[in-house]
Amino acid sequence: MQPYNWDGIPEVELSPGLTRQMIHTPRMTILRVRFKKGVASPEHRHVHEQVTMLASGAMRFDLAGEKIVLRPGDLLPIPSNLPHGAEALEDSVLIDVFTPAREDLM
Amino acid sequence: MQPYNWDGIPEVELSPGLTRQMIHTPRMTILRVRFKKGVASPEHRHVHEQVTMLASGAMRFDLAGEKIVLRPGDLLPIPSNLPHGAEALEDSVLIDVFTPAREDLM
Repeated sequence: MQPYNWDGIPEVELSPGLTRQMIHTPRMTILRVRFKKGVASPEHRHVHEQVTMLASGAMRFDLAGEKIVLRPGDLLPIPSNLPHGAEALEDSVLIDVFTPAREDLM
Repeated sequence: MQPYNWDGIPEVELSPGLTRQMIHTPRMTILRVRFKKGVASPEHRHVHEQVTMLASGAMRFDLAGEKIVLRPGDLLPIPSNLPHGAEALEDSVLIDVFTPAREDLM
């Protein structure tokens, strides 16, 4: 069994200034997402429970209308099916953990 | 809803040179564990699926007899019920993600 390393996981550009890397296990998906300052992720929702961990930068989240600014070291649990979106206030890197695995992203 | 921040989560010393912080969500548990160099976590197993992410340092894992050295940026999925243990080759910090939530640690 070999570990993954973020430096060896393909990085996909989803749109200008927004890239994503991911791994899947049987019951979890882990993403590393890079946002350039000013880039937003529009409101969306999913059945998967999520915890977002801010690695660097600053991001403003909107959780069902509530605004929350994340700083490095912050962890934000996002319950199943709660509408959420985000905007990067600075160049930022997020680690997102989901359960169950994101079959919609495989 | 407020985010957690690692700096505000109580840090419990489990044994000399080994401390743990944790949060629980309905279906996940996330730990930050600090190991001093030379400190080991004896072999154990649990039904929970785990992904270990090395934040800093170097750790040698033993997964059912297979030795794996983790470096910063590495992610190691540990399947449900697989026996595993670890030893810190340097002062190290791990982020561990589990599903389901670790009710045994609450």
